[in-house]
Amino acid sequence: MDEFALIRKHFQSLVPGSSDVVLGVGDDCALLLPPPGEELAVTTDTLVAGHHFDLQARPQDIGWKSLAVSLSDLAAMGARPRWFVLALTLERVDEAWLTAFAQGLNALAAPCGIALVGGDTTRGPLSITITAMGTLPSGKAIRRSCAKPGDAVCVTGTLGDAALALELGLATQCARFDPDREYLKARLNRPSPRLTAGHSLRGLAHAAIDLSDGLAGDLQHILEESWVGAEIRAEKLPRSEAFQHLAPAASRLSLQAAGGDDYELCVCIPPELLAEARRKLDVPLTEIGRITREPGLRWLDAAGGVLSVELRGYNHFS
Amino acid sequence: MDEFALIRKHFQSLVPGSSDVVLGVGDDCALLLPPPGEELAVTTDTLVAGHHFDLQARPQDIGWKSLAVSLSDLAAMGARPRWFVLALTLERVDEAWLTAFAQGLNALAAPCGIALVGGDTTRGPLSITITAMGTLPSGKAIRRSCAKPGDAVCVTGTLGDAALALELGLATQCARFDPDREYLKARLNRPSPRLTAGHSLRGLAHAAIDLSDGLAGDLQHILEESWVGAEIRAEKLPRSEAFQHLAPAASRLSLQAAGGDDYELCVCIPPELLAEARRKLDVPLTEIGRITREPGLRWLDAAGGVLSVELRGYNHFS
Repeated sequence: MDEFALIRKHFQSLVPGSSDVVLGVGDDCALLLPPPGEELAVTTDTLVAGHHFDLQARPQDIGWKSLAVSLSDLAAMGARPRWFVLALTLERVDEAWLTAFAQGLNALAAPCGIALVGGDTTRGPLSITITAMGTLPSGKAIRRSCAKPGDAVCVTGTLGDAALALELGLATQCARFDPDREYLKARLNRPSPRLTAGHSLRGLAHAAIDLSDGLAGDLQHILEESWVGAEIRAEKLPRSEAFQHLAPAASRLSLQAAGGDDYELCVCIPPELLAEARRKLDVPLTEIGRITREPGLRWLDAAGGVLSVELRGYNHFS
Repeated sequence: MDEFALIRKHFQSLVPGSSDVVLGVGDDCALLLPPPGEELAVTTDTLVAGHHFDLQARPQDIGWKSLAVSLSDLAAMGARPRWFVLALTLERVDEAWLTAFAQGLNALAAPCGIALVGGDTTRGPLSITITAMGTLPSGKAIRRSCAKPGDAVCVTGTLGDAALALELGLATQCARFDPDREYLKARLNRPSPRLTAGHSLRGLAHAAIDLSDGLAGDLQHILEESWVGAEIRAEKLPRSEAFQHLAPAASRLSLQAAGGDDYELCVCIPPELLAEARRKLDVPLTEIGRITREPGLRWLDAAGGVLSVELRGYNHFS
């Protein structure tokens, strides 16, 4: 099958007829109609086989996660997902793999209302680059750079599940019949981008970032961009039941704060707006600390004492 | 050096202060302001080491070409380049390589007025994915699907130079002191996207495509999408002087029609508008044949007889 037939067969079904898509897959460019007066939010992410996912990973999961990481970036800005383009590098054409990959991609794209509008397929070591575009009213994006001293630092959902799944070797393992392991595995392989949360937090949160490289590293970006510091209560980091059951006590904090792959949002919000935010959100929002005028990130224990731990986010090149 | 410092150091200088960039590199998403009433043209392309460029290629050239292939797609639609995001996968951090890569990228980005607004760096086998965005007045894009019987089929510039350079092994060879070889090598490593041509052809050309996989294959897309055929005069395919000097007679047609990597435009235009188009263009526009009602692509010799040749475009998976 040639490259063009390949693209058409597997991905053209992912292009819904939408009034904001003037021209989808199949020309030199896609042609899109951004809503007048809105800003365009754009993000690009690459997943490389053997680095971001196991070579034995299910193609459905790879498809889902490739899009999820980009949607999570849109969520962090409060943008509404609109369109994405897919650059797919494959060792060879494997029909079954492509079918499953497209299924996984579509399983996330369809409910999120994001349309595949273009792409490129090339031969080489397996990797996937997705560039996702969203829109939001002008000036309403939640940035990293506007956290204020006194803001409550909050996170959506729970932290550490994906890192624990990875540590337990669940990425490609059959985990059926063990609800805890199954849950953790799904958190690693099929993260849920917090789009509704991001959207609802517009106008309430001062700053937000999505947690892809671990809280310690990602929160650091907010602190640096906002010229502030933070005190985080380690015992307040929200844990799933499965995490409670299976995480070794000694590694809990490092899994939760430096593990990565959470795809939750970390949000800085005035404490008086927390109740309103919680009413609007479709996931729990847990306060884990406060933004401080004093720079730097300090970890506190349950008694409020400073923990002397070194926690760093995942760094692709360190 | 960590990932974030890496991005900042090498690429933040490529982000010009522009009124249509609300927020560039450094947050979860870039925030852009598309001009009201314009359509957004989007294209994504991956270049993989060992497939699209030689592992020994100069990083300056890789940087240039990575962007050129995307700009060529924007040119084919008649779009004005605006913004791009860069997903860079590297085996390791090599400062000298990155500096040179960024230089080459910038050497093309700056004069074309396109701004780097975001990116991702990951570890893995060297590859580059660029997603480029342009804008153009609503409804004015030149598509593949609107060629009409009787249209003159034209190409910008000359064909076959890059394919000949590849065949002569010039991609990474030092070709100084031989103007012909130097010229061909530059055509392969530093193609010039035909942005002014594409822009000028809006409102004149019925259809256009950029020539990346070779005329035979790329023109076929126009024919299929427009439900027409074409007769192309093989001897009319425009040749550079260097090509005249160095291309073996036996392989000229296949280099020019099936070689790929030309990054010229193939355009279908009413013959009566050719003179006006030529006045507006900054490159030669050569008529090479006509669009026919009868489907299929027929190659004719100088006497008008049908050539029995099989010419196919480059296919990444055949």
